[in-house]
Amino acid sequence: MPLDDFPAGSVWLVGAGPGDPDLLTRKAARLIAAADVIFYDALVGEGVLDLIPATAERVSVGKRSGRHSKDQGTIDALIVAAALAGRRVVRLKGGDPAIFGRTAEETAACDAADVPVRICPGITAASAAAAAAGVSLTLRGLARRLTLVTAHAQAGVPLDLDWPTLAAPEATLAIYMGRAAAATVTQQLIAAGRHPDTPVLVVVNASLPAERIIRGRLSALAFLTDAISSTDPTILIVGEAARFTLPSRDGSGSKGAEDRSWPTELCPARP
Amino acid sequence: MPLDDFPAGSVWLVGAGPGDPDLLTRKAARLIAAADVIFYDALVGEGVLDLIPATAERVSVGKRSGRHSKDQGTIDALIVAAALAGRRVVRLKGGDPAIFGRTAEETAACDAADVPVRICPGITAASAAAAAAGVSLTLRGLARRLTLVTAHAQAGVPLDLDWPTLAAPEATLAIYMGRAAAATVTQQLIAAGRHPDTPVLVVVNASLPAERIIRGRLSALAFLTDAISSTDPTILIVGEAARFTLPSRDGSGSKGAEDRSWPTELCPARP
Repeated sequence: MPLDDFPAGSVWLVGAGPGDPDLLTRKAARLIAAADVIFYDALVGEGVLDLIPATAERVSVGKRSGRHSKDQGTIDALIVAAALAGRRVVRLKGGDPAIFGRTAEETAACDAADVPVRICPGITAASAAAAAAGVSLTLRGLARRLTLVTAHAQAGVPLDLDWPTLAAPEATLAIYMGRAAAATVTQQLIAAGRHPDTPVLVVVNASLPAERIIRGRLSALAFLTDAISSTDPTILIVGEAARFTLPSRDGSGSKGAEDRSWPTELCPARP
Repeated sequence: MPLDDFPAGSVWLVGAGPGDPDLLTRKAARLIAAADVIFYDALVGEGVLDLIPATAERVSVGKRSGRHSKDQGTIDALIVAAALAGRRVVRLKGGDPAIFGRTAEETAACDAADVPVRICPGITAASAAAAAAGVSLTLRGLARRLTLVTAHAQAGVPLDLDWPTLAAPEATLAIYMGRAAAATVTQQLIAAGRHPDTPVLVVVNASLPAERIIRGRLSALAFLTDAISSTDPTILIVGEAARFTLPSRDGSGSKGAEDRSWPTELCPARP
């Protein structure tokens, strides 16, 4: 295992992808195997954690909706201290470190301490959800841009997004951490002009054995997300791109573009 | 090598990521190793192609700016015909299949022919570029959403994007295939209200040995991209997120948040 790019006393911020260890990059797997200590989030999949070598220390700094086990400043300090002690540090983050990952705080902390830090990208939740559902997030002439937002707001603070911009019909929206805010998203997008019949996909536990894909229309989004547990990673895909899903694996799904209408149904997870 | 998810006569659309074979997912590498035939784009990295087993047929269906060696309908027909002949088909696409990848056309063609098709996600160019530059594409309170657009327009057709929406200061823009349109992007974004001093990053050949990262301001974007070859994959990152780059590897870069100002300079590729 060559370690030229991972000297002692350095940090890699590593994207763990959506959860399936098969969706790690080869580079991420290599860095995990070479680490002395790994700090990981609650959203990192169990199968990914199983790849951590027995010789490495593993430290949960898990953040999950409503429960922040360690605050960001503490995480920054832990990473820097481990590197300054001469260890090879992997900071393992669900998805891609560059997208809703608090990466700038951690690179700034490393910089300030003269600790070398680099980033290994990961499969972000939007890509994983699209692959699971068999859709393209962009469509020529119909869905010409893709906008990623997070619907996570601080407790007690109303969700403040730029709704008129998000309501533009040409954009596919990928709404991270969208379950709790589904009713607000529906109401605000429709109020800002997005059509109530806009196709939506709700992807829960993308890439994991408990993956579920729920299809429907924007007007029913809050209903579609109602039964989802608050601990299950959930992404909402809104826009024409959500219409073109693949048939479900068991053969019960519709076939062909004509039948790809908008039933409100639960699809089984892909085998 | 388990092939439960890759029966004869089926198709996988596989994301090849930005070019570095180390940035393939483990799943993508497994599917490539199991394929009987692989149809690949011009943007798929040489190192990725080196992983194709000698026993598999490899077919270039390369599309590159200005040269379309096969049209989309021909590609669709080739994939379907190979699967109907009972072969295991991998369609290898640069980046992530769901993002500017013409994936909906190919899944629809498979569906219409009753050919099973699934998608394996890949690292999209925006994630790869951010990792290369050491930036986060989102920043709490500053860059609260990320919008991906393509600046590729058909020959002779002016680039028609929703400039007022893209000019909003809270959005990070990742502009795919942006080199040729840099002057238009600059002019239109500034006309729509984006500040001329907005930080920009130009990432060329992300993850490849010839990777280059160019930093500057929006007003100078056309100058920054002037010397880039039309065959080098180029992505433009526009917004506050582009300000917070890591120091360059050779120690000549600035350190600490305070010094992370906006020099217009060429950074060496990461070793």
